[in-house]
Amino acid sequence: MKKNALSITRADDFAGWYQQVIAEADMAEESGVRGSMIMRPWGYGIWERVQYLMDQRIKASGHENCYFPLFIPLSYFSKEAEHVDGFAKEMAVVTHHRLIKGEDGGLVVDPEAKLEEPLVVRPTSETVIGTAFARWVQSWRDLPVMINQWANVVRWEMRTRMFLRTTEFLWQEGHTAHATKAEAMEETLSALEMYRAFSEEVLAMPVIAGEKPENERFPGADATYSIEAMMQDGKALQAGTSHFLGQTFSKAQNIRYQDKDGEFQFAYTTSWGTSTRMIGGVIMTHGDDDGMRVPPLIAPYQVVIVPMLRDKPEDEEVLDYCKALAKDIAKLRAFDEPVRVKVDVTGAKTQTKRWSWIKKGAPVILEIGPRDMADNKVAMIRRDALYQDSGKLDTKFLAKAEFIPEIPALLSDIQTNLHSEARERMDGNVKKGVEYWSDVERFYAPKKKHPGWLEVQWCKATGEELKSIEERLKKLKLTFRNVPVDAAAADGTCIFTGKPAVERIIIGKAY
Amino acid sequence: MKKNALSITRADDFAGWYQQVIAEADMAEESGVRGSMIMRPWGYGIWERVQYLMDQRIKASGHENCYFPLFIPLSYFSKEAEHVDGFAKEMAVVTHHRLIKGEDGGLVVDPEAKLEEPLVVRPTSETVIGTAFARWVQSWRDLPVMINQWANVVRWEMRTRMFLRTTEFLWQEGHTAHATKAEAMEETLSALEMYRAFSEEVLAMPVIAGEKPENERFPGADATYSIEAMMQDGKALQAGTSHFLGQTFSKAQNIRYQDKDGEFQFAYTTSWGTSTRMIGGVIMTHGDDDGMRVPPLIAPYQVVIVPMLRDKPEDEEVLDYCKALAKDIAKLRAFDEPVRVKVDVTGAKTQTKRWSWIKKGAPVILEIGPRDMADNKVAMIRRDALYQDSGKLDTKFLAKAEFIPEIPALLSDIQTNLHSEARERMDGNVKKGVEYWSDVERFYAPKKKHPGWLEVQWCKATGEELKSIEERLKKLKLTFRNVPVDAAAADGTCIFTGKPAVERIIIGKAY
Repeated sequence: MKKNALSITRADDFAGWYQQVIAEADMAEESGVRGSMIMRPWGYGIWERVQYLMDQRIKASGHENCYFPLFIPLSYFSKEAEHVDGFAKEMAVVTHHRLIKGEDGGLVVDPEAKLEEPLVVRPTSETVIGTAFARWVQSWRDLPVMINQWANVVRWEMRTRMFLRTTEFLWQEGHTAHATKAEAMEETLSALEMYRAFSEEVLAMPVIAGEKPENERFPGADATYSIEAMMQDGKALQAGTSHFLGQTFSKAQNIRYQDKDGEFQFAYTTSWGTSTRMIGGVIMTHGDDDGMRVPPLIAPYQVVIVPMLRDKPEDEEVLDYCKALAKDIAKLRAFDEPVRVKVDVTGAKTQTKRWSWIKKGAPVILEIGPRDMADNKVAMIRRDALYQDSGKLDTKFLAKAEFIPEIPALLSDIQTNLHSEARERMDGNVKKGVEYWSDVERFYAPKKKHPGWLEVQWCKATGEELKSIEERLKKLKLTFRNVPVDAAAADGTCIFTGKPAVERIIIGKAY
Repeated sequence: MKKNALSITRADDFAGWYQQVIAEADMAEESGVRGSMIMRPWGYGIWERVQYLMDQRIKASGHENCYFPLFIPLSYFSKEAEHVDGFAKEMAVVTHHRLIKGEDGGLVVDPEAKLEEPLVVRPTSETVIGTAFARWVQSWRDLPVMINQWANVVRWEMRTRMFLRTTEFLWQEGHTAHATKAEAMEETLSALEMYRAFSEEVLAMPVIAGEKPENERFPGADATYSIEAMMQDGKALQAGTSHFLGQTFSKAQNIRYQDKDGEFQFAYTTSWGTSTRMIGGVIMTHGDDDGMRVPPLIAPYQVVIVPMLRDKPEDEEVLDYCKALAKDIAKLRAFDEPVRVKVDVTGAKTQTKRWSWIKKGAPVILEIGPRDMADNKVAMIRRDALYQDSGKLDTKFLAKAEFIPEIPALLSDIQTNLHSEARERMDGNVKKGVEYWSDVERFYAPKKKHPGWLEVQWCKATGEELKSIEERLKKLKLTFRNVPVDAAAADGTCIFTGKPAVERIIIGKAY
């Protein structure tokens, strides 16, 4: 019987499996600091790839990168809190600026060094960036302003989970200001589409892009859009959001411009963000019972060469052969970049090294021993198709000279294959055509594992009516995800109220 | 008479000039948050180039990037403070995790949400990274560990200055652990050499690499090395440091390994860092009375095309011509990368745009009007050779077809030229052969502007003797910079004590 590399399977304990993938793939670990993780080279390397590739798209669409302060004076938030209901208040606050020796010889906070005004560690930067926009924008000629920032942010979360919800996380936040409502809305949707395309094309992670209902909006936003990815346990992961902020923030922060007629107008602003949370999504989209599977576009190394070393004199020759092979592979280009290849020169046993790269999810693993060298062959393992039908590891012995030029096509095939597999799973798990609330209750019956999502018709309730629907969903641990931008028009009745339906909306369990 | 773009010249008021360059080049601005600046696209773009190019060197020398928490529990520092004298204590401390509505409707810190243990915002990461190393390192097989982190750090500075000394700044910090003292020392010096080469080759900023005397060491280090750059006012800027930490930190943090004989040994550690401070160094090395001059290797755009637009129908044609020109230029490669080119399509007057790019310091500026277009010519300004002898702007009218293929060589020439100019100035301003303390006093006479540095022979004093020498230097506002790694051997007497000299050391005023 086939035995997998992880001791916990997805089917048995999805949450335990998730933690084990992260540990066994050496992606991240608990830091000893509450709610904060350490991203290790393989996990951080994936984030670097995400940054690199998304940054290109952000810049290509006319945005420039800036850097704004980590600390935001408390008064900035007070101003925002006046304008914004439901403003989140769980934040890290800096109140002192010095340590001194305590009585026991250790260090304590110096009570003399209290700040006049507490500083909040940024949870997001609308307030401090808006204040800058107010300085930068005077005339219609100064618009649009389109900037982006890569930064760390902090939110004081009670229950944390690596990559998905950590006190500190890394992200990008785009912020723009525009002269007209139409332009700002176009920007909001263009950021959403950028995220959708990035997620599908780069992360190989299928998503549904759509608008959130009122109760799920970013506080202060006129409209919030999201991309929602389906994890292998059928839960939704919100993997990116784009907010149309209307004039709420420009009025709070006085972002005004003189139009062509000399009249003062408030600008329209947007903000949009994605974070290291996406990596959690990639794990739960592509990981299997042997560990992580990294899509080639974001794999720190796309091809890993494992020399079979036996502490014998011929080791040197095998190593040289592998290094020469790596050099040849590095000359190839895949996805318009040089192929990223690594020789694992560590002293561990071949089997240990092989399985460590399988668990890390390197797309292609090549094993080279003295015999392969003599035959001019490579033993190739493809991470997305690990086993033969028999359950045996599917190691292919290939002629080196023929195999090398095939690598770019192979990587491209793996990228496509991971995407198709995930796309098929998602498409098969969004059930449409449910007409009654009782069907919803049945669909999410307590014993059912990984039920997926429902697309239902509803009346687009607001206010109190929406709250009561929210309560009903909450009892089943469900939430609204979004109204897909490409959903069919409504043609039935609202499953919650029986009123004529206005649109179709996704519901499901979520992270 | 030639009139420069800035109202403050270097000769008149170097500090005022520095601030004006930053403002006029749109590099950074005050944020309204104490001691923190906003890096605007041109300034941050330079930092992105620095990151990109240094990251390649860091990785090529076998280091991998990780990410560690921003918040470090106070107890970690207490442990360090026991082991380390002179431990700096001006740090931002997070004590609370929630805001609530205050009596006046604004927000206040929730006194109920006090943290059990205060969290320090990282001033540097030795403690938290060392704690991880202690987990990662068990056997000699786990060594060396060689990692790097790009991050923001915070130090509570009393007097701040953009790029040079800000409360929050961006940096990279390398951290390594090794089995032997020799290996750790080799790593320390190899990081130092990486910084030296990067500074000279990439920033075009000449530096002296050398060891700091005892009183200038990083607290807890056995040896600290630095690169010191000379600013145009003759002051030194410490632009990077590399520390040999011996076993001080491994003992405090219990980084132990079992050697091949099964014996437990403490590892030897190093750390090394450079920061956004380097950009301050680049400004004060290359800037002139017309603003910034950015070395092509780190210029966000190397070639800027300014279309001469007149609000007339032919504008469209000029714009198209410029965009086609940009496309051709973007196909070229300089320094092994595609040439970075931008068309300035903003609606400002040609003269305004020209001078804004001169003040920003774009290496090559091309102006294109209808006449140039008709003649197939470009009007080219080279930022490092802005004026003719007469004082007139040196705009060269060149045949487009002949000029384009010359761009890579031109960029390379500008890079070299900026370096040579700075190298010559530095070499001419390090005076050697001073034999008496009275000569030092004369050299740094109060009225003298921009005196530069002295290389003097000294006895390598330590302890109390060193302290009294420090006091004498302090009266002249001087400090020891470093003992150049390539200085000649000592052959005279110590100018401070009259004892036989042990080595040659640089003294000067410093930032």
